[in-house]
Amino acid sequence: MLGSETSTFEILKGLNNSLLRNINLKFLLFGNKKTITGNISKFKLLQESSEIIDCDTFISMEDKPSDVLKSKESSSMFRAIQSVKNGISDSLISFGNTGALMSLSLLNIKTLPKIKRPAIASIWPNLKGESIVLDLGANTKSSSQYLIDNAILGSSLASILFKIDNPSIGILNLGKEDIKGSDDIKAASDYLKKLTLNNVLNYFGYIEGNDISIGKTNVVVTDGFTGNIALKTAEGTAKLFQSHLKDAFKSSLISKLGYFLASIPLKSVKERLDPRVHNCGIFMGLNSLVIKCHGQSEYRGVSYATDIIYSLLVNDVNQKIEKFLDKIHEKITI
Amino acid sequence: MLGSETSTFEILKGLNNSLLRNINLKFLLFGNKKTITGNISKFKLLQESSEIIDCDTFISMEDKPSDVLKSKESSSMFRAIQSVKNGISDSLISFGNTGALMSLSLLNIKTLPKIKRPAIASIWPNLKGESIVLDLGANTKSSSQYLIDNAILGSSLASILFKIDNPSIGILNLGKEDIKGSDDIKAASDYLKKLTLNNVLNYFGYIEGNDISIGKTNVVVTDGFTGNIALKTAEGTAKLFQSHLKDAFKSSLISKLGYFLASIPLKSVKERLDPRVHNCGIFMGLNSLVIKCHGQSEYRGVSYATDIIYSLLVNDVNQKIEKFLDKIHEKITI
Repeated sequence: MLGSETSTFEILKGLNNSLLRNINLKFLLFGNKKTITGNISKFKLLQESSEIIDCDTFISMEDKPSDVLKSKESSSMFRAIQSVKNGISDSLISFGNTGALMSLSLLNIKTLPKIKRPAIASIWPNLKGESIVLDLGANTKSSSQYLIDNAILGSSLASILFKIDNPSIGILNLGKEDIKGSDDIKAASDYLKKLTLNNVLNYFGYIEGNDISIGKTNVVVTDGFTGNIALKTAEGTAKLFQSHLKDAFKSSLISKLGYFLASIPLKSVKERLDPRVHNCGIFMGLNSLVIKCHGQSEYRGVSYATDIIYSLLVNDVNQKIEKFLDKIHEKITI
Repeated sequence: MLGSETSTFEILKGLNNSLLRNINLKFLLFGNKKTITGNISKFKLLQESSEIIDCDTFISMEDKPSDVLKSKESSSMFRAIQSVKNGISDSLISFGNTGALMSLSLLNIKTLPKIKRPAIASIWPNLKGESIVLDLGANTKSSSQYLIDNAILGSSLASILFKIDNPSIGILNLGKEDIKGSDDIKAASDYLKKLTLNNVLNYFGYIEGNDISIGKTNVVVTDGFTGNIALKTAEGTAKLFQSHLKDAFKSSLISKLGYFLASIPLKSVKERLDPRVHNCGIFMGLNSLVIKCHGQSEYRGVSYATDIIYSLLVNDVNQKIEKFLDKIHEKITI
């Protein structure tokens, strides 16, 4: 919990709230013991289900992944990852430096045998509910194999989190027509069509940027560069909208009264679209689950992420992914 | 005006409104004479400044660019482009099929001598005002040269439209650090830094998706794939926000009253962010200006686009671009 912009109190409150729903959870809390002890007494249940691991250094938001790999073995992030690596913890929630977390996870927890690269998946709100978008992992290199892997990872995730049998998958592209897109996208699309014909998964076809918010498919597959920029652009647009709205309501006494009267449903809109609540990045394709929470998460964001991890552990998402891969291997020769 | 989803009446109303501000404009209206004549009588000023060119066929939204190139020489779009090619018109506004418009423009109007590929630029609202984002042109191939060209095209556009001397330019990337991004992005960034050191333009550095809405730079440079998806994702997010907002205001009698009281400033927010008003695509880097308006533009969108074209013609944007290119050639040897 060091190196995070979220306060220890918010994190503990969020964990405690999730624990009330998922009573089997146990926590190892890596951070400054004094700070954690000073806050945890307010959360009796959490206190009983937790062990504090005192760490005196941390990886800051400014540390480069390359520096992190070489040093900081006593940092809270490094030690938490070691705990997953050694099977002491089943999974990890972090609020720290995304690049460092990915590098350390890749090096220590490693990818599943048939997955080439982990992907960062996020849950986006849409008109119908939510969808999984991946990869948001800031990779500059893409390939058809990565896109196919993302489809498999996303489908496994969506089937558990949304409790649906055969989630629909779309590839984010410039248009719906077969002729559109890069060679990688076309090759991935052709292959996913084959998998769909063989009833391995449910590929819908190409979708466009505006289809994400419409909720056209349960899973949106994209490369890590486009996905990352689309996510941040969407966040920025939502903030712009909120800012203009705030100004509008402040513009006169009458509009202030208007805001007052509509404030409850308006707050629920804000909450439904608030990145501090929803934007956790789920590292998919590693041997164990890692979740990166928004650096400025509030307690609801923390409990939301903890609920997700619990659900994915209980339903063994990695086993689901491996079954998928076996089925593909059985039915299709690449 | 055939092949458009916008009604002839809305288009004529928009042109007329712009004409009231830009009295020197003259129009050639390519479309069904009967429909245009039936509507134009309501706009006396426009009627006096226009000539109708009767066209009996049109390029539909479904026509593929490849088919369009081979046939439909009698279509309104083809004939309008010929009119620009032959110097009868200075520029063109279209409400039709973007792919066809780009292919025909490229083939007939051609790019400026030193520009390799035209870019589609758009004006995005942000917290501080507006910025230019380009390329949104749905190209799957990028190169450092395209990105550099986009910076020059965008800077020329921003200096005229925003009336600023040296617009700041950002490249859309995964983060602010020099190590981030593809090789193309890094090479373009290095070159733009050199141009900035030589006082040719004002390159700020890398920006992220959320910086577009913050308005961190006047110009946002990106490749046509990422830009296209970012634009559509932003549009989708805005629609999602509006839809949730509408539901919120409808949720009770009290919140309905709240909406009623705040309705005037709320409508102004909607208008400021409405893609039907703002989203025209400016084809930059061709020998003459071409603007593609949103297929569902309303009259304000039409007059907005017409104002832009007028401003760019009066200030000779293409001369500005060529001066830029000469200056670069003078100061830097690539």
